[in-house]
Amino acid sequence: MASFFGRFTSHSHSNSNAPSAPSAPSPPPAPETHDQGQSHGTAAQYYSEQQRPRPYGSDYGGVSSYGSYGFPPGTSPEVIRSFQMVDRDGSGFIDENELQQALSSGYQRFSLRTVRLLIFLFRNPVDSTRMGPNEFAAIWSCLGQWRATFERYDRDRSGKIDALEMRDALYGLGYAVPSSVLQLLSSLYDDHCGGRVEYNFDSFVECGMIVKGLTEKFKEKDRNYTGSATLTYEDFMSTILPFLVSYS
Amino acid sequence: MASFFGRFTSHSHSNSNAPSAPSAPSPPPAPETHDQGQSHGTAAQYYSEQQRPRPYGSDYGGVSSYGSYGFPPGTSPEVIRSFQMVDRDGSGFIDENELQQALSSGYQRFSLRTVRLLIFLFRNPVDSTRMGPNEFAAIWSCLGQWRATFERYDRDRSGKIDALEMRDALYGLGYAVPSSVLQLLSSLYDDHCGGRVEYNFDSFVECGMIVKGLTEKFKEKDRNYTGSATLTYEDFMSTILPFLVSYS
Repeated sequence: MASFFGRFTSHSHSNSNAPSAPSAPSPPPAPETHDQGQSHGTAAQYYSEQQRPRPYGSDYGGVSSYGSYGFPPGTSPEVIRSFQMVDRDGSGFIDENELQQALSSGYQRFSLRTVRLLIFLFRNPVDSTRMGPNEFAAIWSCLGQWRATFERYDRDRSGKIDALEMRDALYGLGYAVPSSVLQLLSSLYDDHCGGRVEYNFDSFVECGMIVKGLTEKFKEKDRNYTGSATLTYEDFMSTILPFLVSYS
Repeated sequence: MASFFGRFTSHSHSNSNAPSAPSAPSPPPAPETHDQGQSHGTAAQYYSEQQRPRPYGSDYGGVSSYGSYGFPPGTSPEVIRSFQMVDRDGSGFIDENELQQALSSGYQRFSLRTVRLLIFLFRNPVDSTRMGPNEFAAIWSCLGQWRATFERYDRDRSGKIDALEMRDALYGLGYAVPSSVLQLLSSLYDDHCGGRVEYNFDSFVECGMIVKGLTEKFKEKDRNYTGSATLTYEDFMSTILPFLVSYS
C-alpha cells in the first residue's frame, strides 16, 4: 500500500488535471480499498498533505476571460452563470445570501451556517466579508470533489450517509479523523431522540469544512507532521476564535 | 504591586466570602489601578487562577432547603423564584428557552447564543442538554460578579462599554487578554459600518464566557502555567469542537 501522504498527494494531483463537472460530477479515480476495521496509523497520519483544489481547467467548455468578472481562465460557463445570476449589479462581489442562492443552482440549498463556514475558509484576504469570482470558483470546484466523494459512499442513493461512511468519506478526502472527534462532530446533528445520526450533503460539507479548516490550522503549527504542536496562549486563542466568529 | 496570580487568587477568595445580590450587585473590592498603557506581563500571565464562583451564601436571606429542587443550601429566594417561574412542571430541569426567560427576571434578556454558551460552560455532566438547580445557581452567581465588573467600567451608565474598557473589565475578572485576541473578539460585534465596536452586558458576557471557557481548556494542557502548551491533533480537535457545537 502506498504511504499515507503519497496517496493523497497523488489523489489531489489527479483531480487538478482531470476536473469533473460540478453539477453532475464523475467520481475521482477509485481509491485503494479502505478496511473499516483497520488502524488509521500514527498521530502524524491524522491529516494529509491535500492541497486546495485548483479552479476548473479549460478542457470542458471553459471560457478564457470574462472581462471585469475576473474568473480564472478556463472557468466553466455554469460557474460564471451562477455567479452572474445573483450578482445583479455587476459589482463582482456577492454576500452570504447570494452565495447561498448561487450554490443552489449547481448543488442544493446549503444552510447559512455552512455558507458562512465556506466564506470564512475561502475568504478574500483583502475583504473577508464578500466573495469575488476567484473565491466562488474555488468553492464550486471544492464542492464538486466533495460531492463525488459523498456519492461514492451514499450507496443506496438516499442522499444520506451514516457515521461510519462519514469517517470513510472524510478519509477519502484526505482526513483520517479519530473516532472521538467524529463523535463530537456527530453531536452537531444529534436531535437527542436516540436515533442514528445521518448526514446529508449539507451537513457532510459542514463537518468536512470544519475538519479541513482546523486541520490546516494545526498543520501550520506542526510543520514536520509529528502529530503534536506547541502553541502559546495567544496562538491558541487566535487560532480558535475565527471559527467561533464565522459561526455568529 | 502584588503578583498577577496573587492578586486574582485574593480577588476570587474575597468574592466567595462576600457575595453580592445579583439583581442589584454591589461592586467587589476595588482592584489595584490598572494602567491602560502598561504591559500585561509575560505569556504565562495571560490567564489567572480564578475559580468558578461558588453559589450564594446564607448571609442575605438564603433558604437552606427547597426539597426536590436541590438548590445548594443558602441559595437566594430570588434565584429559586426565577427558576420555579419557568420550570412549570416542577421537573427540576429547564431548557435553553426557559433559561433565557429565567435570567431575564434578574438581569436582562440574553441572546440565545449567549444562553447556549452558558449552558455549555456550566453543563451538568450527566445530562448536558438540561439545566438543574445547581447549574442555574452557579450561572446566576457568576453573572452577579460579571455585572458588578461591567458596571464598574460603564462609568456613564450608558449600558455599554468600549474596547479598552472591555479589556480592563476582562482583566478585572482575571483574564489578561492579548490585544490581537481582543480584536478578533470585537469582530463578533462589528457591523462593518465603520463605527466603534461597543459591548452591552449580553455581548460582554458572551465574550467573557468565550475567554473563560477557552482559557480553562488551555490551562488543562499547561498545568505549570508556562504560557504555552503541547497538544496532539486529537487533543486540539477535541478541545475546539465542543465550542463550535455549542454555537450551533
